[in-house]
Amino acid sequence: MFSDKLKEECGVFGVYNNDEFDTARMTYYGIFALQHRGQESAGIAVNNQGTILYRKEMGMVSEVFDDVVLDSLKGHSAIGHVRYSTCGDSLRENAQPLVVKYTKGHMAIAHNGNLTNAEKLREELEAQGTIFQTTTDSEVIAALLSKERIKVNAIEDALKEVMKIIKGAYSLLVLTPHKLIAARDPLGIRPLCIGKKEDSFFVSSESAAFDGLGISFVRDVEPGEIVVIDHNGLRSIQTNTEKKSALCAFEFVYFARPDSVMEGLEVYEARFKAGRILAQEHPIEADVVVGVPDSGLAAAQGYSVEAGIPIVGGFMKNRYTGRTFIQPSQELRELGVNMKLNPIRSQIEGKRVVMIDDSIVRGTTSRRIVQLLKDAGALEVHVRISSPPVKYSCYYGVDTAERKHLVANYMSIQEIGDMIGADSLGYISEDGLLESVKGNFNFCTACFSGDYPVK
Amino acid sequence: MFSDKLKEECGVFGVYNNDEFDTARMTYYGIFALQHRGQESAGIAVNNQGTILYRKEMGMVSEVFDDVVLDSLKGHSAIGHVRYSTCGDSLRENAQPLVVKYTKGHMAIAHNGNLTNAEKLREELEAQGTIFQTTTDSEVIAALLSKERIKVNAIEDALKEVMKIIKGAYSLLVLTPHKLIAARDPLGIRPLCIGKKEDSFFVSSESAAFDGLGISFVRDVEPGEIVVIDHNGLRSIQTNTEKKSALCAFEFVYFARPDSVMEGLEVYEARFKAGRILAQEHPIEADVVVGVPDSGLAAAQGYSVEAGIPIVGGFMKNRYTGRTFIQPSQELRELGVNMKLNPIRSQIEGKRVVMIDDSIVRGTTSRRIVQLLKDAGALEVHVRISSPPVKYSCYYGVDTAERKHLVANYMSIQEIGDMIGADSLGYISEDGLLESVKGNFNFCTACFSGDYPVK
Amino acid sequence: MFSDKLKEECGVFGVYNNDEFDTARMTYYGIFALQHRGQESAGIAVNNQGTILYRKEMGMVSEVFDDVVLDSLKGHSAIGHVRYSTCGDSLRENAQPLVVKYTKGHMAIAHNGNLTNAEKLREELEAQGTIFQTTTDSEVIAALLSKERIKVNAIEDALKEVMKIIKGAYSLLVLTPHKLIAARDPLGIRPLCIGKKEDSFFVSSESAAFDGLGISFVRDVEPGEIVVIDHNGLRSIQTNTEKKSALCAFEFVYFARPDSVMEGLEVYEARFKAGRILAQEHPIEADVVVGVPDSGLAAAQGYSVEAGIPIVGGFMKNRYTGRTFIQPSQELRELGVNMKLNPIRSQIEGKRVVMIDDSIVRGTTSRRIVQLLKDAGALEVHVRISSPPVKYSCYYGVDTAERKHLVANYMSIQEIGDMIGADSLGYISEDGLLESVKGNFNFCTACFSGDYPVK
Amino acid sequence: MFSDKLKEECGVFGVYNNDEFDTARMTYYGIFALQHRGQESAGIAVNNQGTILYRKEMGMVSEVFDDVVLDSLKGHSAIGHVRYSTCGDSLRENAQPLVVKYTKGHMAIAHNGNLTNAEKLREELEAQGTIFQTTTDSEVIAALLSKERIKVNAIEDALKEVMKIIKGAYSLLVLTPHKLIAARDPLGIRPLCIGKKEDSFFVSSESAAFDGLGISFVRDVEPGEIVVIDHNGLRSIQTNTEKKSALCAFEFVYFARPDSVMEGLEVYEARFKAGRILAQEHPIEADVVVGVPDSGLAAAQGYSVEAGIPIVGGFMKNRYTGRTFIQPSQELRELGVNMKLNPIRSQIEGKRVVMIDDSIVRGTTSRRIVQLLKDAGALEVHVRISSPPVKYSCYYGVDTAERKHLVANYMSIQEIGDMIGADSLGYISEDGLLESVKGNFNFCTACFSGDYPVK
Repeated sequence: MFSDKLKEECGVFGVYNNDEFDTARMTYYGIFALQHRGQESAGIAVNNQGTILYRKEMGMVSEVFDDVVLDSLKGHSAIGHVRYSTCGDSLRENAQPLVVKYTKGHMAIAHNGNLTNAEKLREELEAQGTIFQTTTDSEVIAALLSKERIKVNAIEDALKEVMKIIKGAYSLLVLTPHKLIAARDPLGIRPLCIGKKEDSFFVSSESAAFDGLGISFVRDVEPGEIVVIDHNGLRSIQTNTEKKSALCAFEFVYFARPDSVMEGLEVYEARFKAGRILAQEHPIEADVVVGVPDSGLAAAQGYSVEAGIPIVGGFMKNRYTGRTFIQPSQELRELGVNMKLNPIRSQIEGKRVVMIDDSIVRGTTSRRIVQLLKDAGALEVHVRISSPPVKYSCYYGVDTAERKHLVANYMSIQEIGDMIGADSLGYISEDGLLESVKGNFNFCTACFSGDYPVK
Repeated sequence: MFSDKLKEECGVFGVYNNDEFDTARMTYYGIFALQHRGQESAGIAVNNQGTILYRKEMGMVSEVFDDVVLDSLKGHSAIGHVRYSTCGDSLRENAQPLVVKYTKGHMAIAHNGNLTNAEKLREELEAQGTIFQTTTDSEVIAALLSKERIKVNAIEDALKEVMKIIKGAYSLLVLTPHKLIAARDPLGIRPLCIGKKEDSFFVSSESAAFDGLGISFVRDVEPGEIVVIDHNGLRSIQTNTEKKSALCAFEFVYFARPDSVMEGLEVYEARFKAGRILAQEHPIEADVVVGVPDSGLAAAQGYSVEAGIPIVGGFMKNRYTGRTFIQPSQELRELGVNMKLNPIRSQIEGKRVVMIDDSIVRGTTSRRIVQLLKDAGALEVHVRISSPPVKYSCYYGVDTAERKHLVANYMSIQEIGDMIGADSLGYISEDGLLESVKGNFNFCTACFSGDYPVK
Repeated sequence: MFSDKLKEECGVFGVYNNDEFDTARMTYYGIFALQHRGQESAGIAVNNQGTILYRKEMGMVSEVFDDVVLDSLKGHSAIGHVRYSTCGDSLRENAQPLVVKYTKGHMAIAHNGNLTNAEKLREELEAQGTIFQTTTDSEVIAALLSKERIKVNAIEDALKEVMKIIKGAYSLLVLTPHKLIAARDPLGIRPLCIGKKEDSFFVSSESAAFDGLGISFVRDVEPGEIVVIDHNGLRSIQTNTEKKSALCAFEFVYFARPDSVMEGLEVYEARFKAGRILAQEHPIEADVVVGVPDSGLAAAQGYSVEAGIPIVGGFMKNRYTGRTFIQPSQELRELGVNMKLNPIRSQIEGKRVVMIDDSIVRGTTSRRIVQLLKDAGALEVHVRISSPPVKYSCYYGVDTAERKHLVANYMSIQEIGDMIGADSLGYISEDGLLESVKGNFNFCTACFSGDYPVK
Repeated sequence: MFSDKLKEECGVFGVYNNDEFDTARMTYYGIFALQHRGQESAGIAVNNQGTILYRKEMGMVSEVFDDVVLDSLKGHSAIGHVRYSTCGDSLRENAQPLVVKYTKGHMAIAHNGNLTNAEKLREELEAQGTIFQTTTDSEVIAALLSKERIKVNAIEDALKEVMKIIKGAYSLLVLTPHKLIAARDPLGIRPLCIGKKEDSFFVSSESAAFDGLGISFVRDVEPGEIVVIDHNGLRSIQTNTEKKSALCAFEFVYFARPDSVMEGLEVYEARFKAGRILAQEHPIEADVVVGVPDSGLAAAQGYSVEAGIPIVGGFMKNRYTGRTFIQPSQELRELGVNMKLNPIRSQIEGKRVVMIDDSIVRGTTSRRIVQLLKDAGALEVHVRISSPPVKYSCYYGVDTAERKHLVANYMSIQEIGDMIGADSLGYISEDGLLESVKGNFNFCTACFSGDYPVK
């Protein structure tokens, strides 16, 4: 219940260190700060003088690692990875980083994103005799890197060749005995940024991971850029000839932490602004604004300010639902069991409520939340959504439902509003959303518009 | 870090069921909804036709129970318990419910609170030859109940006698083969309430546990009341001759869920009102109001509305810190590692900030949070606290620090403000707090006033 | 399959140490050497300057303890316990040692045996208001000790009184802040012995636990004796007025390790001698003697020597069946799945075999083993049993089947022989068995003779 | 202590089933029966209609699998693997079966043995761009198989080509969606045999795994043979042009179960015969023969029969030492702590003892055992070893020590005898050993003779 959300695939974090800090622990806290990007598995690989030591398991960062494990991961540089929550022990093989031995020694790879031509590349490689042990794109990239590496002089040159072959979205880290390499796909669909602390360099899916570690944000990795970090410092290779970009708009709408800054824009600020625009586009007479925790809160504050309607805490959210929580059975849910959200009755009862959420995927969750508010005595519930209707599947690393399950694909806005029981329903326009994230960057809006930047 | 909080001791939940529902699962969800009252251990005991089956372990509710365990706990009635987080495996023996065999069969006991004469009672019992296997008050109560039971005709009569002997705070559940008994100390220091769903009765530390289970709130258990639930329904025994009450004020300030209702008052509403009063008592010119998550948020909203200063989301809080999270070492903290709160810079930078928190215990946490705001660019940070200065230790089931560590005990408000780096500091007055919770009930304010309702 | 054996209840081990050794680890190895006496749960309690620290859990010794746990159990003296394997997590409360707080401080109790009047004593204590949290005899003993202790000056004096009240079999260890006390029931039904190493004293259910630790065997604790070990050394209190003894004969037949010495007699030697007597009582013409591993091997060697028939290794026994092994289902067993014993065909095929086992309880196991030998080509299988027919239940700490399931209770020897498919069947006579263990001690033979030494 | 043994690398078991049996459970019991061949990790892969499901983990068979896991492994055919015990979590990646996706779908590989040219093959493959994720030979074989498969029409044809490339010892199982393939290296260095039950075929490292499952032994896989099992039944491909064979002699001396039959010879019988020959080659006047458990027992029985000296049980061996047992520290061992073997004093004291063991590697263990016998009162200890001196390292899958640690490599037999404290020492001759295993097969004796059958 209440888990009808788009799902991000992964988060990555890397350290190239000059022995000042505890590399494994810095990486632990780094991927811990990115835990919202993936709760299925976690892994850390460290470069211990040419040998790559690693640990990866199903579970949350705090479950996979303890002091004994971290103490065993001594190294000069490291990369870490979190992967999103699906299910099944058999997927343990898919945990990252992927660590391989190739002709030049060991290499660890972690990435966030999705290759659109992975299946085709696998088939081609298999036809040449390659075997695969996982179903990750990382293994495809590793296989290609290894094949290109025998033709060129440096791993970054091999990566340059590989980036001509692979298509889609990727923010990629490669750890070798002497280098930490970061690369981002030519459109910059997934975020990736660089930090620095004393003589150490860091890379992360989101800048918020730097804040908690006292690391200074340096800049985003550019679309198509390969960043090579070694004992000479940081060097950039730009593979992009065209000046295009297409950052996933949903990073701002929902995925990223509100305290992260991407392409110069703070996520909270963008959401707040989207809330203001939403109020302009879909005004309504009401008594209170409530945000659906947690991702609807910033937009709700924006809506409140713009509309001059006070914001209140509308819901209590139970924070203790971890991996091992037993979800109520269908039978218990029909008996009224609802363990995640509870309305704050005093703020709702007898009020006309504007309820702000970030998106509607299947609609079932929205219907339940509207019902909770009505049950708590709301006179009217006006639903305002801070993203345009999601009508198209994502092929770049987000687990949208199949297209046929996307409610906006087969219902009009009016019908959706009726279905979820809202007294009115308003989505921000695509232009409104783009206005909220306006800057020196372009966005991928494929899931709203069907306009896919990569085929 | 950031864990410098008062700690509640426990939460209890009970079901007397007529076979309509899955007793163990109802109790599981009940204590899950009370998880904020204790994360150290969890336990459930069910009455299986006269035999009491149980499971209790160190850990969170979702860690202690899985489907296999719950399936094994078949029964007609049940009680559950959560206990707060200290540390150490050796305390496993102290997990509740306590299950004992006495002259009339089996009995399970769970309680929230603290007896002020437990040590004396233990000594008296030991001097008569009694042995103890735990250090819980529950075992003292069980020993006394058993001793009284041989003199009277019913367990509730024995309990009546025991309540003449024990002093202090307790909200108590007793499960026997034929009855579920709930009792509250004569001053009602800890909360306890009754719910109903079809033919089943429920008791809970907080009403919010009922909401998520579709249970209707009936009423609070009264101070000094013994409630006997059996196949004849619910029967009340009032042991209180005087009409006194002294509910812990901190239940409203901090412990309870905002969506719980106690003595007719919703916790969120009380906090909101405290925020308004705080704004009246300590107004300030400022640009934004921020609440320290999570317990400062409702008061912040009240302050914002009263003061006419917009509220913004000031902090991102990392929700993934479970029991197994490795806290940053002192060394890492000095390197700037801070994993729990991160300011939302866009809302803080260049602003005069009113920061609302629920209490200051040692002051160390407040100092860090003020610093975070200043580092994020706050021009001024005005701290407003929605409870009066905590100067006295609690003897009724709250883990305040020792008195000598309570900063308000040895510093003036001005000194505390300087120490935490605030540009100004204001606490709500005791009268203000009492105004915020005004109703047909009296409150224990011993930790503020030193005026202890029980010696 | 093949688990149709009598089951011993427990083993105990104690250390009174003068800081020379690592007390917890000595106890760990001590109870590890007694693991054959119980595989259900294991526990160690240490006296840490008046505080008793402990750990007990379901599982084997090596599963319950690791270095971290043992390092946390620092102390000057200690007792340990292993309990036999039944099943079920709910029995965790019954793991020993039992640690209690009583009027004089802490006390830990561990025992091997069974009180015949435990139920009556519980009822009497409950009628006085005592509560029980386990179903162990140890808790009854602790409750009585505590009650007696308030009347006398020393714990050993209290124990003396308790020994007047309790009936049955017990080898008992009591650890207090200043003493380690060992006591054995007036008939010495369960074994208990004393060892010494430098200035430290040790007690153990069996002497073999001393051998592996380099401890010198001193002597057996006498029937009815209380041994008090403290900083003054070892002191003996004899509570026995009559000179009676009744050591369980099955300790020699099956329970004890062959390398243990009890009452001056080595278990292996006794079994070997029983084998010789068996050969005298039930001679047969045959080609080879095989012992059923492991407890039938010593008697087989005796039989071989006496009869002049060569002994051969008749069976391969799979040693890896731990607690977590999945026993073959009935269906698989019918398909011929048998994971424990496999005959050594070359030694059996075409031979007339004398098969030596220690006992027949239900007969099902014997039937299967005879069948295995026939399937492996044995021409004849003559079964010889080194104990008399088991016809009566034990009330002194051995889990015999209920009497109605004891095959010797309702079948003649001829019928049993037919049922198990043997070409002939011979049991050692009761006199023969007593001859094999002949010495300065008397034996309990209740399970053969129905002659119970305690009512 | 007492673990100074040669170590076998692995055991394999496979099922090609016609839905009669529970494939995963048959494989579970199969590898359980082969647990003595490897205790480090265990794994099972099943073919579920073209998809290969698997589970592999560090630990014993009974630890890795439970009913839930086995229930999830539904399939028509299966292979299983056990690997020997080293240490370290990081080796989890090396657990087998290895499951890969290649151009024709999924494939699982398990093998026992060691390729002598693995390192060279890896380098060649890496130079062509291949990546490796484990350090197992199985991955090399999988990579080669995949490469060859694209050139030919069937997996068995690819395997034929691969067998021309790989050198060394291997008993190999390959599971594909439609086939189970078994292959043995051209010299048959490691054992592998075929079984049948109703319409199902089985393969196993040892025949004893068949006995416990009611499977009929069919025959050994021949050196160099590829056996293809599919819905058409069993088909053989012989790749061997020369008629050579070189089964590891140590399979008979130590590795294999005594109840296994290899190349027509039962292991127990071979050991028994070796004992007889040893008695002829190194007679001695003595009172008793004792075998060091478990692998010395059969030879001891042979020695006893030939020499006319009675065999006795000389040692009690503690069977409970699992993976989690805490080995005594050096300090405790010096205090006399010895947890594994304890002499049966009555059989040793005052006797002249012939002690039979299977081999001497470093000599440290033998010295301790001789000392135990002397401490138990043996007048003389004459050590007889049922294999010739081990002087050379094995490159075919046995973990002998490095050559410099092999005591027979740098000491004369006289010196070894003195070092271990024996009154006399005799090894069986190489001819004697070969006589004991005489049949239609040749043996690898490289570790005795230095005569390596494969370079």
